[in-house]
Amino acid sequence: MRYKIVLEYDGTNFDGWQKQPNGKGVQNIVENALAAFNPEAPKTIVAGRTDAGVHALGQVISIDIAREITPNKLCDALNAHLRFHPIIAISAEAVDENFSARFSAKKRYYRYVILNRPAPPALLANRVWHLPHKLNLAVMQKAAMDFIGQHDFTSFRSVACQAKNPVRQMLDFTITPREDQIWLECSAPAFLHHQVRNMVGTLVEIGRGQRPADDIPRILAARDRAVAGVTAPAGGLYFVRVDY
Amino acid sequence: MRYKIVLEYDGTNFDGWQKQPNGKGVQNIVENALAAFNPEAPKTIVAGRTDAGVHALGQVISIDIAREITPNKLCDALNAHLRFHPIIAISAEAVDENFSARFSAKKRYYRYVILNRPAPPALLANRVWHLPHKLNLAVMQKAAMDFIGQHDFTSFRSVACQAKNPVRQMLDFTITPREDQIWLECSAPAFLHHQVRNMVGTLVEIGRGQRPADDIPRILAARDRAVAGVTAPAGGLYFVRVDY
Repeated sequence: MRYKIVLEYDGTNFDGWQKQPNGKGVQNIVENALAAFNPEAPKTIVAGRTDAGVHALGQVISIDIAREITPNKLCDALNAHLRFHPIIAISAEAVDENFSARFSAKKRYYRYVILNRPAPPALLANRVWHLPHKLNLAVMQKAAMDFIGQHDFTSFRSVACQAKNPVRQMLDFTITPREDQIWLECSAPAFLHHQVRNMVGTLVEIGRGQRPADDIPRILAARDRAVAGVTAPAGGLYFVRVDY
Repeated sequence: MRYKIVLEYDGTNFDGWQKQPNGKGVQNIVENALAAFNPEAPKTIVAGRTDAGVHALGQVISIDIAREITPNKLCDALNAHLRFHPIIAISAEAVDENFSARFSAKKRYYRYVILNRPAPPALLANRVWHLPHKLNLAVMQKAAMDFIGQHDFTSFRSVACQAKNPVRQMLDFTITPREDQIWLECSAPAFLHHQVRNMVGTLVEIGRGQRPADDIPRILAARDRAVAGVTAPAGGLYFVRVDY
């Protein structure tokens, strides 16, 4: 029986989603929790392989479980085993055997949160990128529009990115002020490694006036990581949800 | 020279604002930090004496400092000394000698955050009251209107509350859904001990259908703490700001 499980986690103290020999991947903890009531060694398929320090509000995994169990019981049992970790199963549902959390995904949503005020965060430590100087939101919003559509995102992916094709289709990119925070939200069928953090880092340089507002098309055309801006810190990034 | 300082803090691991012999009051940490660059033992006056576990987004203190220092330098120096604690000075300003963070306050704002979904929080542990069963928001919103105006709030204050006069004037009480959260926000010139948490606890019992929607006037009239509902947990409460 195949299940789809939605997870929330605080990525601060994990080495990212992926299983690690040191046991500090979110996947290690989740698979250990699943192993406790699943006779076979469970192998999870994940929608978004988040990096170290990146959080998830709606990560999705698919998993085959031999034992018959109702989705609600699966969710509760999983949470009982996860109770000493900042990882929670929000929901579980039975899905058909062709479903894959990774390959059936139609649209992925990310949010990046900047705290834009002089004082560092007390309540949101490790949850935001703290930028003390006022960013020019209007030019950032205008520049972000140049990401929309289908582009070769080579300039915005990690040099270690293993995807064969660097072309991705950006469906949406909004930048919204929320009190002393700035939320950058984007969605696409799929993302490259570090793509969101590199797009955000570059937009911040534009918002600081270190780059012209119309720099994005030039950077995309260059197909060179060195031409784009810094990688925004992991702690501000949230994997929000997936549409299937 | 008198200064007004705005503080943000995560109240989770403190025994509340007030100075404690064990050193675990927020006031202990803040006064120690101020003492490091202030030759006289500093005595802070606070706008809201938050309880153990209660957070602040905009707590206000006033303090006299003998040494001449610009507000920006005071803020930075304070934050340097607070860097190992989840307490941040958001701003500082010089005020006249009649200003008191406590007695000059015209209006205080509180927010209470409920996480209303089956799964417990991963990212907001100790920051929300987790209530797994769907609350009836409409009846809670209607009931909250009965708090508006001037009332004897004896039924909604802690039996240990030391205020001589139990009459308070509630200016505003809104209840707003935010994705899987419910924000209860209220403002008043002043509050009694545990007043917000007792009002929230009672509204939740109404939202669960355990009390009639029109129960608030009866509870107020009873002037008896035992007639009102439970005290909502501290972790969901935020002292938001003060108007002067």
